[in-house]
Amino acid sequence: MFRRNYSSALLEEAVDQLATLPGVGRRTALRLALHLLDQPRENVEQFSGALMRLRQDVRHCPVCGMISDDGVCPLCGDTRRDATVVCVVESLRDVLSIENTGQYNGLYHILGGIISPIDGVGPGDLRIRELGERLAQGGIQEVVLALSTSMEGETTAYYLYKQIAQYPVTVTSIARGVGFGDDLEYTDELTLGRSITNRQPFKP
Amino acid sequence: MFRRNYSSALLEEAVDQLATLPGVGRRTALRLALHLLDQPRENVEQFSGALMRLRQDVRHCPVCGMISDDGVCPLCGDTRRDATVVCVVESLRDVLSIENTGQYNGLYHILGGIISPIDGVGPGDLRIRELGERLAQGGIQEVVLALSTSMEGETTAYYLYKQIAQYPVTVTSIARGVGFGDDLEYTDELTLGRSITNRQPFKP
Repeated sequence: MFRRNYSSALLEEAVDQLATLPGVGRRTALRLALHLLDQPRENVEQFSGALMRLRQDVRHCPVCGMISDDGVCPLCGDTRRDATVVCVVESLRDVLSIENTGQYNGLYHILGGIISPIDGVGPGDLRIRELGERLAQGGIQEVVLALSTSMEGETTAYYLYKQIAQYPVTVTSIARGVGFGDDLEYTDELTLGRSITNRQPFKP
Repeated sequence: MFRRNYSSALLEEAVDQLATLPGVGRRTALRLALHLLDQPRENVEQFSGALMRLRQDVRHCPVCGMISDDGVCPLCGDTRRDATVVCVVESLRDVLSIENTGQYNGLYHILGGIISPIDGVGPGDLRIRELGERLAQGGIQEVVLALSTSMEGETTAYYLYKQIAQYPVTVTSIARGVGFGDDLEYTDELTLGRSITNRQPFKP
């Protein structure tokens, strides 16, 4: 552990702030701070400016809730995507993960969280009303629930399922099963059980 | 590799900037950017402000060259330290590393670099004149050279040695040898040879 006496309150403050980043300890924070000290002043201005602007000027797509600099996001605006399918996710992270697979061509709906009474998050805090409005407008045939399998995720999925029931859409959920490369031996019983129940025709 | 389409130029710019940090790839940069997006706006303002201030308001100790918010640094100003010994290092990083050992109680002199003709760094670009001034003032009895063993480090050490010769001080160099926990088998010949030449009385 590095001692906290860096001979400079400025350096110490910068290290304190950098150490708040996930996965960054004080030792790494010091390394990052010294790196920034070595950079030209304009670079550091650009660096901190970019982070500040990200947080201050962030806007959200009025349709799906994705971050978007100006109005409807490029995903919702892309006419090549299948607008009859909407995938409901908790956050932007999930959208990026699913987009990264290249296996989904529909639209998204970001809830902005998950129902969690312990954290004081109720249905009213999430973008559930907006989902209802999208469904009421018509055109959507399938809603894919891609929420986590935690207690909160299941609760949210069930709540959404009840809410969606009034619209003429199919509700699906992403498949659960043994991951590629995972050993059966080390897969938890719930996942392995589900993957047997939902077994698929073998395609050689 | 994450695709670059984040639907937001603001997010992309923040990721680009975070990815310039040492040891941070684009995937980690995205994780950090999304973390900052989740934080309250004031926190992100404090975060980027601290980094900006570090670079803009940084001041150096007029004596040793250490970064210092206001005048002489706490190390040079500490009367409990032995002002007759000055350890010459390349950078602030080295001072922090040596301080971390808790084995040194003298003062420092930061050169701010190392003589490197390839990089266009000559003796005039380093704080060598300032070292001469400190020695000319008297009171210093020993100068410890703690420079790297690279070609540039050796050149700088030799140059300093010649410059210091005119003052009545002892010039020493940090010990080179086999590190604690290192296998003799994997130690390079130069280091192992030096550690045999400089062998010490055994203290059981």
